[in-house]
This record gives sequence, C-alpha cells and structure tokens, in this order.
Amino acid sequence: MTQIEAAQAGNITREMELVAEQENLDVKTIQEGLAQGTIVIPANPNHKNLIPCGIGKGLRTKVNANIGTSSDFGSLDTELAKLKIAIKYHADTVMDLSTGKDIKDIRHYVLQNSPLPVGTVPIYEAGIAAISRHGSIVGMTEDELFDVIETQAREGVDFITVHCGVTRNSIERLKKQGRVADIVSRGGAFLTGWILHNNKENPLFEQFDRLLAIARKYDVTLSLGDGMRPGSLSDSTDRAQLEELIILGELADKARAAGVQVMIEGPGHVPLNQIEANIRLQKAICKEAPFYVLGPLVTDIGAGYDHITGAIGGAIAAAAGADFLCYVTPAEHLSLPDVEDVKNGIIASRIAAHAADIVKGIKNAANWDRNMSQARKRLDWEEQAKLSIDPERFMQLRNRMPSAGKTCSMCGQFCAMKLVEQYLGVSGLKC
Amino acid sequence: MTQIEAAQAGNITREMELVAEQENLDVKTIQEGLAQGTIVIPANPNHKNLIPCGIGKGLRTKVNANIGTSSDFGSLDTELAKLKIAIKYHADTVMDLSTGKDIKDIRHYVLQNSPLPVGTVPIYEAGIAAISRHGSIVGMTEDELFDVIETQAREGVDFITVHCGVTRNSIERLKKQGRVADIVSRGGAFLTGWILHNNKENPLFEQFDRLLAIARKYDVTLSLGDGMRPGSLSDSTDRAQLEELIILGELADKARAAGVQVMIEGPGHVPLNQIEANIRLQKAICKEAPFYVLGPLVTDIGAGYDHITGAIGGAIAAAAGADFLCYVTPAEHLSLPDVEDVKNGIIASRIAAHAADIVKGIKNAANWDRNMSQARKRLDWEEQAKLSIDPERFMQLRNRMPSAGKTCSMCGQFCAMKLVEQYLGVSGLKC
Repeated sequence: MTQIEAAQAGNITREMELVAEQENLDVKTIQEGLAQGTIVIPANPNHKNLIPCGIGKGLRTKVNANIGTSSDFGSLDTELAKLKIAIKYHADTVMDLSTGKDIKDIRHYVLQNSPLPVGTVPIYEAGIAAISRHGSIVGMTEDELFDVIETQAREGVDFITVHCGVTRNSIERLKKQGRVADIVSRGGAFLTGWILHNNKENPLFEQFDRLLAIARKYDVTLSLGDGMRPGSLSDSTDRAQLEELIILGELADKARAAGVQVMIEGPGHVPLNQIEANIRLQKAICKEAPFYVLGPLVTDIGAGYDHITGAIGGAIAAAAGADFLCYVTPAEHLSLPDVEDVKNGIIASRIAAHAADIVKGIKNAANWDRNMSQARKRLDWEEQAKLSIDPERFMQLRNRMPSAGKTCSMCGQFCAMKLVEQYLGVSGLKC
Repeated sequence: MTQIEAAQAGNITREMELVAEQENLDVKTIQEGLAQGTIVIPANPNHKNLIPCGIGKGLRTKVNANIGTSSDFGSLDTELAKLKIAIKYHADTVMDLSTGKDIKDIRHYVLQNSPLPVGTVPIYEAGIAAISRHGSIVGMTEDELFDVIETQAREGVDFITVHCGVTRNSIERLKKQGRVADIVSRGGAFLTGWILHNNKENPLFEQFDRLLAIARKYDVTLSLGDGMRPGSLSDSTDRAQLEELIILGELADKARAAGVQVMIEGPGHVPLNQIEANIRLQKAICKEAPFYVLGPLVTDIGAGYDHITGAIGGAIAAAAGADFLCYVTPAEHLSLPDVEDVKNGIIASRIAAHAADIVKGIKNAANWDRNMSQARKRLDWEEQAKLSIDPERFMQLRNRMPSAGKTCSMCGQFCAMKLVEQYLGVSGLKC
C-alpha cells in the first residue's frame, strides 16, 4: 500500500506519525492531506535509512538541494561531500541529477548515505544510456526508458521528475507562441527532441498507466516536471507553459485515483508580479497538489548570485502557497555547484521558506523570530548564535569586532539598545 | 534656489537635465516630480565633484551603501576602500555613518572622493561631541546639535537623516504599545534618551523651521528618519511606528512649502505580507514623498545573511512603490561591513531594485533581461558576462567548468538549448 492508499483506507502509517511529530500537527491532519492529495510523503520502502518528510498544504515549506555530476564536472567524492553539506545545513530533500560517469554508483551511495528523501530525473540516465547504445538520445526506446525508471524505483528512489506534459500539443503551442529561450529544461529538451525526431507521442504521457504501475509498486512519488517552464522573464506564464500545466493537472487526477502520490513542478524565470498568479493557477488547476518550484528567478541578469534572485522569488511563491522550493545556487547558469555553493543555496532557500512560513501561519515559525528578537534585546549573543540560520557564520562575523561580547557591534560604545533601556528604565544596563 | 524651488518656479536646472538623461525621461517629467515633491535630487552645491542622481516616482529604484567607522572598527583607509567598492559596484548613493575617531576627516575625504550623493546622520557627530564635552549624549545642547547640522551642510553633505518624528507623543505611544525590541535606531535611541532625560521635546521637531532654514540654504535633502522603526517582526506596523509616520507626513508638507527637498525613511523588520501595506501607507500619508527603506528584513533569524533577507523585502517593497533601498550587508546585526560585505550588500540590493524595476515598468529595465536571455539562447558567453550584474564573478564561476566556452556548463555535453535548436530547427548547432 502506498501512503496515499493507506490514508484513503483510513490507516495511519509510521511515516504519517513521524511527519505529524516533526510538524507538531495532529496525525489526522497529515492523513487527510495525504488522502486528498494536498500532502505527499516521498518514502520508498526500499530507501532503508530514510527519515520521512512531508510536503504540502499546512506543512513547513521544504527545500530541495540538487547535487550530481555532469560529463565533465564532479565525482563520487565531490557529490557525497555535497550530500553531507546538504544534511548539515538542513536541506529537506536532495535530488541526484548526475549525468556524468558512474551514475549508478553515485545514486547507490547517495541513497545509502541520505536520511533525506532522494529524488532523480530518470530520463537523464536513460538518455545517456541511449547515446552509448544507439549513438543519440533520440534512439532511446520506450522500454529502455521504463526499464531505467523501474530500476531506480527498485533501488529506493523516493521521488522522480517525469516530464509527462511535454507532448505534441504542448510543443505545438510552444512553436506558435514564439519564445525567447524556447525550452531550458534538460529533460524537457531530451523529450522534445525524441518526440520530433521519432514523430511519436511522449511515452511518459502516452503510457502514463505504465508509469503509474511502477510508481505504485514502489510508492515512488511522481513529481510532474515542467519541461515547458520559462527560462526567460520574456517567456513567463505563456501559452506553452499553461498548456503543460493543464495536462499535468489532468495527470495528477489519474495518479491520485491510481493510489500514486503526486506533486507538480513549476517555474522558472518569472517577473515578481506574476509569481502569485502562477501559484494560484497551479493550485486551482491541479486541485491543490503540492507545488514544487524552481526559484522562481525574478530577473535573468543575476548569474553568479542566482541564490538571491531565487530567494526573492521563492519567498513570494511560498508565501502565496508553494510548498517546496528547489534551491538555486550562486553557480546556476554558469557551472555545477561546489560544496560552498550548495551551502549558500540551501541557506538562501531556507531563509525564503522561513520568511514565507511566518506569514503562512506555520506552527512555531514566528516564535523562532520572536525568540531571536528577545535574545537580541537582552544582548544575549550566545542565544542569538544558536537561533541564527548559520551559527558558525554568525560567530565568525561577530568575532571580527574587538568589542564582541559587550555592546552591539554596529554602534561600538553607542549602543541603541542600552541607551533605550537606560532611559525607558527597562533594565539596569549603563551606557 | 533649491531644486524644488527651481522646479516650482518653472526653471530647468543642470541637475534636472542630467537626471533626465540618466533616466532616459523627458526633463519636464523630472521637473514636475520635483515640484510636486515625488522626486528629489540630493545635490548640495558645496559637494563639488557630485554627479546628481534622482530618487522618486517613475525613476529607477536607487540603492544606498552605508559606510563609516564605529569606535572600535574601521579607519580612514578602510572607509575610502569601501567607498571605492561602492562606486565600482554601482551604488547610487553612500552614507557616511562614522561614529569613531576622525569623523570630520573621514567625511571630508568621502565627500572629496565621491561622485555619488553623500548622506550623513548628524546626531551621531553631535552625540559623540556631547560625550567628550558634557560626559554624556543627554548633555548635548540644542545649539550644539544645530551647529553640527549646519557645519555638515556647509561641507557639502547632500542629504541628512533627521529623526524628527521621535517626539514625546511617539515615545508615549511606544510605551503603551509594549514592544519586543523597543527602539533599534541609533539616532532614535540618542534622541529618546535626550528627551526623557531632559524632559524636553525633540529639538529637531520643535525647531523644525530652524532645520528647514539650514536645509534650504545649502539645498540639503532631508531624509526624515524612522527612529521608531520596528527592529523585530513582532513590532512591525505598530502604533508607535504609525504615530511617527503621521508626524513625518506633516513635516514633509512643511518642508515642501519651505522649498526644502524631503524624503521619508521606512522599516526595518517587517513580515513579508505587511510590506506592501507599509509602502501604500507611506505613499498615502506622505503624499507620495520618495520612500527610502532599510531592508525590509523579512525574518529576524538571518544574521550573517541579512543581505538576502533584505533583498527579499527590498524587492517586494520596491515593486510596491518604494523608491530607494538602503542596502543591508551580510554583517548586519553582527559587525560593521568589510569591503567584501559592502560589495555583497550592494549587489543583493541592486538585484532587488532591478527585479522591482521590471515590474514597475521603468524604461529599459526589462530590456536588460531580454538581452541577457537572447545572449543565453545564442550561447554567447562573452555577451552574457557583460550583461550580468557582476561580470568578474560571472567569469570566475564560468571558468570553473572544463567545458567553458562550448556548451552550457550545467549539462556538460547534453545541452538543452542545443538539443532544442537541433529539433525545432532554429539553428545549425549540433549536439
């Protein structure tokens, strides 16, 4: 039984209990969300050391960290180091997006070492295998694609991105639309090439039932990918994107009916004033399925600092209802991230997620800030460090000041807090 | 004649012409905005090497960088190095907030070396002089405060923060409110202490006409400071803050009537879903005076990364109509910024400002992104670097990839752009 089937049958699983505990919510709330499809718990029983994590309505906004090699960057060691950092800085999930050598090995060790849910994009492995087997991605057979999906599911992958909405129709709409950046999703591009070259429909769409059967067997959560996501502000919220979103909404219905957990992926590059509309559209069209957004990036010119452009968009998206933020690192558009980039990407996304959780009314979110403010008011630096998003960094910057430990570093001896306390008579501190 | 007086008299100044040129707008638009008080051009005729810059409605959102020493951090050399970096990374203005030794010297050299408008907070110098003269800040006489203001104006300071809204009334409202963090503005705290200790009204409020006479004489733009700004999400948009805002709105009327340019300062620590309301309130209450916001920070727990929490709030604020963003550096709450922090603070704020300018419809803002996207689509890395927010950083990350110069670094040999071009037949590139 998958988590959604259990929930629909009125059962409470160990995973639901753990998620309820983490979120400080009643397990009934988790069970109902799962049954309705507004919450997913990506938890493949074959991922042995997993600590389950819930994603969706009413839960803390989650953050995913992408790791993985490309053909000319990264190795098993670098990727395991990134996994370690992702765990240390409290990413909620990781995706192994390797496309380089040793794909299988890396996935094996990532799964073995990750208590976080692990996601993949199986079309990458299938496409690369097709190159060595047939000389090109477009030579991939349908069976080869589904074989890769089943193998990964059997190995314990908790969620997979499948670009089921890249179809003849959505490609047609894309052509009519006329875009600046066409398709920037790698999986979306693989499938577009395959569809056009073979003059066939996308097997992930046409044989969606076959996909559902695998997903149900291993309780792999489907993350319906947005191959048509805008890669430029100029292309945002266009007809190709919406065509795909409608298809994904229809497929999400089918998945839920088949006992398969499902979430929806979203943009991308989006102007700040279109983000809320994008979230509301997804929620309406996909009947409140959890929404997993990549960014959104609020400008195209931030390369080198796209963790910041992504944090701006992510905070607005999550405040409007997005449930799951895919981090963006400073290396986005330029390189694969190194360990430091992974850290910076996670922290930027966690800040965005938390800023949103405060206004979403997530339990205890605002208390964290209140406790921090009270510690700040007391000039209790130890407690502030503990409560800060990155205690090590906090102390590193704090210790730069010769006066560290006494007054607030900004004012030197002219501490605003102390002055006010002295004159509003709050405490006995002397300036 | 001040800029606002010239505009009201129907004159076009050299400063208006330069601003019109920078903004690619008709000079009539600039003149009308100045006359109505929706635009300011902080340009003290005694600041000799100034390149004027306009701030306000319809103009590109501007970014201020704070520099300056505290009693135990920084020197003339470090602050001039920060000024250089602020110019290099395209801050629009700088504020010298020194409170350490050599205040006068540092201000002198900052003015001499800055083509950017320079702002100060005169109460800092006045308060510190009072400590050496009278043993405490509260010993400061009213004449001493106005003398410092006049001296700084004569030296060429273009805009000054004056906390005129910290009054007996607003302090009373603060006490009744009951805050977590009371007052976190240094100038606000100085004045609160002074008012309570001396049992007198704030001289900057009570003798506002005296302040206006100095400001008019040197065309110093008044930046009406928010001494009551919230320093914790828990205190945001409270009665003390609004009492002060109303006072500032009334004083802004007086300033405009007296031929003095004026802008309003705003929060602070603000939950994401209160930012737009804060901007609309200020615009309504202050009759569209330019709004200069510090952050806003959307969470209290980001110390070490507050350039990011500030970029999230700043983007939302500017999109809602804020005109001028005071940068926040990674060192905020922990230390004074070093040169690297200044750089990171400016870039984060510029990203926020630009993301907002796109949706504000500022002339050519969206074109920048479009040009970047087109260069990205062409895989034209040289042009992308040129168009990025930090070309040096762009190339540094780009060159980390062995494949740099050929394919997009994310995909290695499996480039989405190339695949799509090949199959949508857009160009002759081969994958």
